[in-house]
Amino acid sequence: MVDPRRWHLDPAVTFLNHGSFGARTRDLLARQRTWQDRIEQQPIEHLGRRVREYLAPSREAVASFLGADPSGLGFVTNATEGVNAALRSVAFRRGDRVVTTTHVYHAVRQTLRRLAVESGIEVVEVPVELPIADADSIVAAIAPWLVAPTRLLLIDHVTSPTAVRMPVERLVPIARRARIETLVDGAHAPGMIEVDLASLDADHYAANLHKWVGAPLGTAILWTHPRVRSRVHPNVTSHFYGEGFTTEFDWQGTRDVSGWIVAVDALKDLGRLGWDQVRAHNHALATWAHAMLVERWGSTPMTPLDGSLLGSIASIELPSAVARRFERVDQLQASLLAEHGIEIPCIEWGGRRFVRISAMVYNRPAQYEKLASAIESMAG
Amino acid sequence: MVDPRRWHLDPAVTFLNHGSFGARTRDLLARQRTWQDRIEQQPIEHLGRRVREYLAPSREAVASFLGADPSGLGFVTNATEGVNAALRSVAFRRGDRVVTTTHVYHAVRQTLRRLAVESGIEVVEVPVELPIADADSIVAAIAPWLVAPTRLLLIDHVTSPTAVRMPVERLVPIARRARIETLVDGAHAPGMIEVDLASLDADHYAANLHKWVGAPLGTAILWTHPRVRSRVHPNVTSHFYGEGFTTEFDWQGTRDVSGWIVAVDALKDLGRLGWDQVRAHNHALATWAHAMLVERWGSTPMTPLDGSLLGSIASIELPSAVARRFERVDQLQASLLAEHGIEIPCIEWGGRRFVRISAMVYNRPAQYEKLASAIESMAG
Repeated sequence: MVDPRRWHLDPAVTFLNHGSFGARTRDLLARQRTWQDRIEQQPIEHLGRRVREYLAPSREAVASFLGADPSGLGFVTNATEGVNAALRSVAFRRGDRVVTTTHVYHAVRQTLRRLAVESGIEVVEVPVELPIADADSIVAAIAPWLVAPTRLLLIDHVTSPTAVRMPVERLVPIARRARIETLVDGAHAPGMIEVDLASLDADHYAANLHKWVGAPLGTAILWTHPRVRSRVHPNVTSHFYGEGFTTEFDWQGTRDVSGWIVAVDALKDLGRLGWDQVRAHNHALATWAHAMLVERWGSTPMTPLDGSLLGSIASIELPSAVARRFERVDQLQASLLAEHGIEIPCIEWGGRRFVRISAMVYNRPAQYEKLASAIESMAG
Repeated sequence: MVDPRRWHLDPAVTFLNHGSFGARTRDLLARQRTWQDRIEQQPIEHLGRRVREYLAPSREAVASFLGADPSGLGFVTNATEGVNAALRSVAFRRGDRVVTTTHVYHAVRQTLRRLAVESGIEVVEVPVELPIADADSIVAAIAPWLVAPTRLLLIDHVTSPTAVRMPVERLVPIARRARIETLVDGAHAPGMIEVDLASLDADHYAANLHKWVGAPLGTAILWTHPRVRSRVHPNVTSHFYGEGFTTEFDWQGTRDVSGWIVAVDALKDLGRLGWDQVRAHNHALATWAHAMLVERWGSTPMTPLDGSLLGSIASIELPSAVARRFERVDQLQASLLAEHGIEIPCIEWGGRRFVRISAMVYNRPAQYEKLASAIESMAG
C-alpha cells in the first residue's frame, strides 16, 4: 500500500512486529530533530518557557483523534506509565479487589503485584479461555466479577500476548453500573482500531502513540474522565502539583519533549492516507494472514476467522513440531531471524506457543507467506 | 577555554544559564542520533534484545565517575524522578518527620507536599538563613533536627535557587548515627563538583547528567546503597519488578534510551579536557564573577567571596532599584533577554531577588561584565 522505504526500518528484515515498538518514518524523525535542534539552541526559551505552547497542538490533535476532551489528556512515556499513574490515584483499602484477565500485559501484572504488596488489595485475573468464540463469551466470563468487593476493572483494549480485541464498550458500562472504577489499557489501540473515549466513558484510558500512530518512542497518553481527574497526578511530582491536570502533565521535570511535540505530525503523516483506510487495510491484511497461517499450519484459530475479535495483530498457535523444538520461545524467535530474516514475537501463554503477526501499511502478503513457509520448513 | 561553537547553543544569546538544562555539544547530539538511527532500523533487536548490553558501558562509566558501585546505579529521566523513586521506597508511618531546608528545590518540595497528604508525614523545612558565613553554620542549623521522629533527611548537594554547596559530607554521617535515612538531591552536582558516593555513604543519591556532564536531556541517575537497595524500584513498575535493581531500571517500558546510552560519550567528551580541570575552571570563573558582580552592584554576598560554598553557579542579590522595578522576576528575566540578549534565571527566594549565574567552559569573563552593565543600566 505504501512504499516501505518511507520508514526507517532495515529492508533486509521481514518485519512482522510493528506491534511491539511501532516504527517511525524518516520524515517524522527529521521533523523531531528539527525540534530537538531548536530546543538545543536555546533550551530556556524553548523547553523552559514555551513547552506548553508547543505541546498544545499535539494534545488537541490526539484528543480529537481519540474522541476525548483535551483537558483530560496528558502525555506520558508509555501506556504502562499511564496505568501506573491511574492506579496511584485510587485510595485502595485493604481487601479491595482489582479485576483483570489472564490476558493482561505482563508489565501491568507486575504493577498490580506491587500494588497488592503495598496496599493489601486482591488481584483477580479472570480466565478468558482460548479459543474465544465471540465477544459474548468474554463478557460472560468477566461480568460475574463486577460486583463487590471489586473496586476497579483493568481491561486491555487489545491484548498483548493473545491479540484479542476486548469488548470494552460492553464491559465498561457493566462496571460503571456497579460503581466500579474502570481503567482501559489501550496500549495497542490508537491507530489500530477506532477509539472514541467520549462514548466509551471509562474513568482512565492509557495508550501508546509510538505503536500504531507512529510517533517517536516514548510517546503515550493518559486520559482521565472529569469525575476522577482532580485526583490523578503524574507518577513523578514536579513544580505544578495541584495546579491542574494538563499543567502537571506538561511539565514532568527536564526531559526531551520533542517526541510529544511531533505526535501531531505523526497523526497527520498517516492521516494523509485516511485513518479509516489505514485501519481497514491493516485489519484486512491481519485477518487474511491470520486465516492463511491457521490454514497452512493446521492450527486451531484462537479467535473467529472473520477477524471480528482482531485489530491488526493476531496470535496464531504454532504447529506442535515447531512449538516443541525449542526449550524457550525466544530461541525460536532468534532462529526465525537468523535463518529466515523474519522478525516476529514468539509467545508462550496459557500452555500454548504462538507467533504474533502485525499488519502495517508497509507490510505485504508475501511476507506472511514467507513466515508460513519458514515455520513449515522448521516443522518438516 | 573551549570554542563555544562546539555546543549547539545560539551564539546570539549570552547564555549564562547552563545550570537549568545544561547544553549539548554538536558531536554528542550526532552520536545520539547514530544510536537513534540504529534503534529505528531494527527496534526489536536494538531496543528489545540488546538494551542492557548498550546501557552497561554508560552505567559503568557514570558509576566510576561518581565513585559508586554500578550495581546500585539506575538511569532515570531527571533527578526529581530519582527523588520520587527513593521516597517511595520508604514505608513511612504517620507522624514520621522528613527534614529538608528552606533551599529545597521546588519540585521536590511539591513531592514532599504530596507525600505529606498521602502518608501523613510531617515535613520540616529547616531555615538556613542568608547570608551564610560558612559550612559550620549550615551544620549548626540542621543538626538539631536530626533526632526522632525524623525518619529521613533530604538535602541538596548544591541548592537550586540559592546556589549553595551544602556540607553533605558532614550532615550525612550525623544522620546515619541517628539512624535517619539520607537522600541527597545531587541535581546540579555531577560534573560541577567532585562526587564520591562510596565515601559519602548516603542511602540514596539522585543526580542529573544533562546539566554539568552535558548528556542528552532526560538523562539522570538514582544510586542507592546496598542497605536499602532491595526496596527501591522505579516509579513505574514494568516487566522485571523484583528481579534486581539494574534489571528493573534498565527496562522502564518502551522509551527512547539513546540519551542514556551516550552518557558515557558525554563523560568522555569533556573528560578529554580533564574533569578536574573543567571543574576547577568553572568554579574559578563562577567565584570571580560572583565577587565581581557583588562588588559592582554593591550587593551583600550570600556566601563567602572565596567561593568556599560555591560550585559553578552563584546567586547574587540584585540592586534594589532593579529588584523593585518589575512586579514579577520573570519580567526582569524577559527584559534581560529582550533588551540585552542575556539568558539568566531571575529568582525570588526568602524575600530577596537574585540572578543565578552559571560558569561553563564555553563562558567568558566578558559575558558576566555585560550582565553587570545591563543590570547597572536598568538601575538607572
